[in-house]
Amino acid sequence: MKKSIHNPKQAAGEQAARLVKNNMVVGLGTGSTTAYAIKELGRQIENGLKIKGVPTSHQSAFLAVENGIPLTTLDEHPILDIDIDGADQFANFIAIKGGGAAHLREKIVAESAKKFVVILDESKMADVLNHSVPLEVIPCARRLVERNIAGLGGKTEVRMGVNKDGPVISDNGNFIMDADFGDIDDPISLNKELSYCTGIVEHGIFTDVNVVYIGKKDGTVEISES
Amino acid sequence: MKKSIHNPKQAAGEQAARLVKNNMVVGLGTGSTTAYAIKELGRQIENGLKIKGVPTSHQSAFLAVENGIPLTTLDEHPILDIDIDGADQFANFIAIKGGGAAHLREKIVAESAKKFVVILDESKMADVLNHSVPLEVIPCARRLVERNIAGLGGKTEVRMGVNKDGPVISDNGNFIMDADFGDIDDPISLNKELSYCTGIVEHGIFTDVNVVYIGKKDGTVEISES
Repeated sequence: MKKSIHNPKQAAGEQAARLVKNNMVVGLGTGSTTAYAIKELGRQIENGLKIKGVPTSHQSAFLAVENGIPLTTLDEHPILDIDIDGADQFANFIAIKGGGAAHLREKIVAESAKKFVVILDESKMADVLNHSVPLEVIPCARRLVERNIAGLGGKTEVRMGVNKDGPVISDNGNFIMDADFGDIDDPISLNKELSYCTGIVEHGIFTDVNVVYIGKKDGTVEISES
Repeated sequence: MKKSIHNPKQAAGEQAARLVKNNMVVGLGTGSTTAYAIKELGRQIENGLKIKGVPTSHQSAFLAVENGIPLTTLDEHPILDIDIDGADQFANFIAIKGGGAAHLREKIVAESAKKFVVILDESKMADVLNHSVPLEVIPCARRLVERNIAGLGGKTEVRMGVNKDGPVISDNGNFIMDADFGDIDDPISLNKELSYCTGIVEHGIFTDVNVVYIGKKDGTVEISES
């Protein structure tokens, strides 16, 4: 009898992990949905699958090691077969990411992969993106970024730490600012405008998603390709 | 009798320093030409000038302290009255910077200033920019940046350290890659393309120069405003 999965994140994560074939080099995303994919890859490795993983964060590196996934780097494997990662919000094959403060390395890894697969539960789907956009910011550029985002019609907040006084510091030593633009009617343009802002190392709009796995409340997974 | 200055860098640096008036907050660039401006500001402070400086690098912070310039930050003074900085090459009010690996903070400071003054000797002037463009790069994105720059028709080299094994590490902990594009016919477009590349924290094309002080071999200084 087939075990049914009623956790939509788990269903999406585990099903996407089955895209990974022998000898692939795999980008390992960050966050609670991707954690299910990483654990599933660990089980497949126990059953004989041979892969290597490139983590997108300390979190995904720790989890990969715990689950027996051999790690490599973009220096050794500059082009990945596939990257599997979550998202904070998703509309029309554009994702907003960075809730876990990992979007800089996540974007580097995603752009290094032949196929970028986003996994999420259906609560993350939107008709129009309106989630705040995480920005990784050079600390001394905080006020400049605040002004430039205001010029683009947005409002920023420096993300504060929990279990750490003061601001969150990213894995790369930078601040995270969350920029609220309300409804983002033209995310492609905003993507370019944000890339052009001095002091923003990377922003959380991801425009190059190839496949999305959407976990539904009923345990099924909807798959769409761009 | 007026002392004549036959060092063109010194002439440009010292003359530009005279733009600084009482109570200004001043961006302090990095490099050998700007060092003359910083030393001149130190002499003016001895004579009663009251200013504060925002350094663009450890080097300019050290030199400012040596020369008695009180330092502040972009947190305390988010908008500067003036920024004075050097350049590696200059044409049509566009500068290439980053020979000293400081162009990330230099650009943050320049964009925070009401007036951005570039100082250089005439050997840095060009009709068409063709100097390699310094890129500050997140270390794990080295190969991705190499591919993306090749896609833009350029060739990259990771800048290697001297007095340090392996690559140069910037004041912000990143690599510097020098990207050779040959003649740069459209630096405004290249500026946007490079800004859009994932893994490049900042590149060395500066498009917002307001004033340039060009030190000539005969000791005179030519001043142009954009």
